[in-house]
Amino acid sequence: MAVRVELLTVGDELLRGDTANGNATWLGRRLTEAGAEVTRSAVVPDDLEVISGAVHDALTRADAVIMTGGLGPTSDDMTREAIALAAGVTLHRDPDVERNLRERAAARRVPLRPDALRMADVPGGATLLPNPAGSAPGLRLALPDGVVYALPGVPSEMRAITEESILAELGGETVSAAVLRTATVWESVVADRLAPVEAMAGVKLAYYASAGEVRVRIEAEGTDRLAEAEAAARDLLGSALYGDGEVTLDRVVHGLLAERGATVAVAESLTGGLLGAELTAMPGSSATFAGGVIAYATPLKHSLLGVPEDLLAAHGAVHPEVAAAMARGVRERLGASYGLAVTGVAGPEPQDGHPVGTVHVAVADSGGDVWTRSPGLPVAADGARARAGIRQMTAVHALDLLRRVLLDLQATDPWPGWAEDREEPG
Amino acid sequence: MAVRVELLTVGDELLRGDTANGNATWLGRRLTEAGAEVTRSAVVPDDLEVISGAVHDALTRADAVIMTGGLGPTSDDMTREAIALAAGVTLHRDPDVERNLRERAAARRVPLRPDALRMADVPGGATLLPNPAGSAPGLRLALPDGVVYALPGVPSEMRAITEESILAELGGETVSAAVLRTATVWESVVADRLAPVEAMAGVKLAYYASAGEVRVRIEAEGTDRLAEAEAAARDLLGSALYGDGEVTLDRVVHGLLAERGATVAVAESLTGGLLGAELTAMPGSSATFAGGVIAYATPLKHSLLGVPEDLLAAHGAVHPEVAAAMARGVRERLGASYGLAVTGVAGPEPQDGHPVGTVHVAVADSGGDVWTRSPGLPVAADGARARAGIRQMTAVHALDLLRRVLLDLQATDPWPGWAEDREEPG
Repeated sequence: MAVRVELLTVGDELLRGDTANGNATWLGRRLTEAGAEVTRSAVVPDDLEVISGAVHDALTRADAVIMTGGLGPTSDDMTREAIALAAGVTLHRDPDVERNLRERAAARRVPLRPDALRMADVPGGATLLPNPAGSAPGLRLALPDGVVYALPGVPSEMRAITEESILAELGGETVSAAVLRTATVWESVVADRLAPVEAMAGVKLAYYASAGEVRVRIEAEGTDRLAEAEAAARDLLGSALYGDGEVTLDRVVHGLLAERGATVAVAESLTGGLLGAELTAMPGSSATFAGGVIAYATPLKHSLLGVPEDLLAAHGAVHPEVAAAMARGVRERLGASYGLAVTGVAGPEPQDGHPVGTVHVAVADSGGDVWTRSPGLPVAADGARARAGIRQMTAVHALDLLRRVLLDLQATDPWPGWAEDREEPG
Repeated sequence: MAVRVELLTVGDELLRGDTANGNATWLGRRLTEAGAEVTRSAVVPDDLEVISGAVHDALTRADAVIMTGGLGPTSDDMTREAIALAAGVTLHRDPDVERNLRERAAARRVPLRPDALRMADVPGGATLLPNPAGSAPGLRLALPDGVVYALPGVPSEMRAITEESILAELGGETVSAAVLRTATVWESVVADRLAPVEAMAGVKLAYYASAGEVRVRIEAEGTDRLAEAEAAARDLLGSALYGDGEVTLDRVVHGLLAERGATVAVAESLTGGLLGAELTAMPGSSATFAGGVIAYATPLKHSLLGVPEDLLAAHGAVHPEVAAAMARGVRERLGASYGLAVTGVAGPEPQDGHPVGTVHVAVADSGGDVWTRSPGLPVAADGARARAGIRQMTAVHALDLLRRVLLDLQATDPWPGWAEDREEPG
C-alpha cells in the first residue's frame, strides 16, 4: 500500500497566477516515480490560520503532507508558525542554523537583516533537513496523524532536499507504468486503435494530447501485466509510435541521423525558425544539424533556395511542389544529407486562397528522391492560439516525415490521414 | 468586497505531475485582474466521492468554486456526477448538446463513441455555458452556499468560456496594479534601482524573473498612488524598461520596425532558429520580418553569410566581429533594413576555448553602421537547463539590442553590464 501524500503550496503569488506551481508538478512526478501516491494538492494564501488549518485537514486524510514555500525571511513567510500552531508546539531558535545564516551573509558581504534570523526558528520536536542548495533548511515534524515536511519554495532547494531526505522515506513499491509517444495522429484515432488494450483486465490507459502529439500512459497491476499490455500497444500503434518514456521527437530524429552519419538542413516558411530551434535544443545537435534558411518572404524562396520563379508565380508559396523545391534547394546549398522543408498558412488570415491550416512538408535526400505530405491541420477557435498550434504541429509533421523517411516507413502501415504522396525523381 | 473564489482542478495526471496545472495559473491571473479574490486552489483525483466532498468544502469557505477537468467523454471524467452528488440532484441528458455532439462528429468524419454522449449529461438545475472553442459546454449551478462552475480541462475551451461567461459575473472593483517589463538587466539590479518606490507608503512591489527578463508588479492603494509609483518606477528604470502589461519584447520590436516601415533579417548560430521563431510568433509579422539564415555549422557562416574565411580561421566562430559580419551579410543578402545576428556558446561544452555563456549579438543597418554587445550570460548548474536558458537569453539580448538601436538609445543611460561597443564603419 503506497504512502498517501498531500502537497500544500503556500503563497499569494500562486493564487494570483503570477507564478506557475512548478514545485507541485515536480513533486507529483518524483513522488509517483518513487512509489508514493499523491492524493491531493492545494495552494493556500500567506495566512497563518488558513495554512495551519490546511495542514490539519491534510493529515486527517493522508499519511504525510509536504509543504513548499513560506520558509523565507520576510514577514509574509509563516509556514514555521503555521506548523507550530497546527502541532500545538512553540518555536525555538536553532543556534546552528543561526550561525550558518550569519556565516553565509558574511561570506557574501551582505548585511543580515534582523528578519532573516526567523529562518533559524524551528517548531518544537521538528528535525532539520539539510539544504545542499541554499540557506534555509527543510523541516520534518512527526505528529500523531502523520508527518509534516516543510521545504523552501526555491525550486533548486526544494528539489535537493526532496531527493536527499524525503523520497527514500515516502517511496514504496514503484508503480508499473509505461509511456508511449505518437506523432501526427488524432487522440481519438489512437484511443480507437488501443481499445483492445483498454479492455485488458488490470490495465489502465490515459491519453495526453499536445500539438500534433499524443502520449499514452499505460498503468498495469504488476510488471508482467504491463509488459503484455505495452507489447500489445506497440503492435497496434505501429509506425505512429516514435518512442517511449521521456524521449522527444527531435531526439529520435537526431538519433536516427547520427546512426547513419547523416545531417539535415531545414527550409522554413510559416514556422519562422521553430523547426531549427527544435533540432538544436539538445546538446550535440551540431553532429546532425547543418543549418537552415528561413525564407519567410516569398521572393526569398527563389533567391535563397532556388525555388523556380514560374512555380511561385503559378501556384504561390503554399504548394507541395514549392515545399519539395525548398527541401531540394536547402539540401544542396547547405551540403546536407537531407533537406527538410515546410510551407503553409499559419493564419490568422488565409493566403492566396488557401485556408489557415493548409500545410505542406517535404523531405529531399541526396539520391534525388523527394517525399511530401500535406496534412490539413485543425484550427483552434482563438486566432492567436491557432497560429501557435499550427506552427507547432507543422514542426511535428515535418520531423515525423523525416523520421519515416529515415526508417523507410512511407509505404507501410498507412494511418488515417496519411495519404501517400511520394514524388518520384525526374 | 471582492468575490471569494476557489479553484478545483480534477485529474490524476496533475497529481502525478504528468502535466502542469496551467489552467489554475491562468484562472488565478484573470480572476485577480477582474477583481475577484482567489482564496484557495486544489487538485483532486478522478474520484467521485473526493471531488464531491471538495466541492462541498470549497463552498463552506468561498462564494464560488470554479472546477476544471473531468468533463470529457471517458469513464474517468466524473465532474458532472460529482456536482450532482454534491448538490443532491440527478443528471439528465440535454437534447441540444447531444445533437451538437453528433453533428460535430459527423462533420469530422469520426465515429461517435457511445461514451461521448455523457458529455450531454447535465445536473438538474444547472445552466449550460456556451463553448465557443469545442464540443463540451461548461456548467453553472447555483447552490445555497454559492455557485459552482465546471469547465473543460482543454485550455483553449476553458479560457473561452471563462472570458465569455464567468469573468463579468465574478469580477468586481479591479485591483490597482501595473506591470513593467525590463530586459537584459539582473533582478537584483532592478530591485536596487526601485528601492525608492519600494519605500513609498501604500506601495507593494513584486519581481518575476525569467530568462533575460524581469517583470515588476506594482500594487498600490488606489489609482492615484499607483500612477505616482508607476511614474517613479518608469523614470528609475529608464532604457531598461521595454514595455508594460502583457506586451512582449518581440512585439515591441515589431512595432518599432513597423512604425519605421523597416524590416529585419536574422543570422543565427547557437539559437538555431529561436530568434526567427520569436519574431514570427505574432500575426502580421511578415510586414517586418524578411527571413533568416541559420548558420549552425561554422563553414556556413562564410558560404551563406559572407563572413570572411580569414576572420573565422583567426578567431573561430565565437567573436564579436563574426557577429558583426553575420549581421551585415544577412541584411545585404536578404535585402532587409536591419540585420540581427547572434553567435556564441550554448554548451554544455566550451567551444574554441570560450566558456559556456559567451555570446555576441550584433545589429547592422543600411547605412553601414554595426552595433555589437557581448553579454556574459549566467550558466545554470544543470547542463540541459543551462543550454535552454542561454539560448533564450541570447534571443532576448539580440531583440533588446535591436530595440535600443531603433530607439537610438545606445549612448544614453548605461546600465550595469552595458559596455559600449559601437563599431564605426571602416
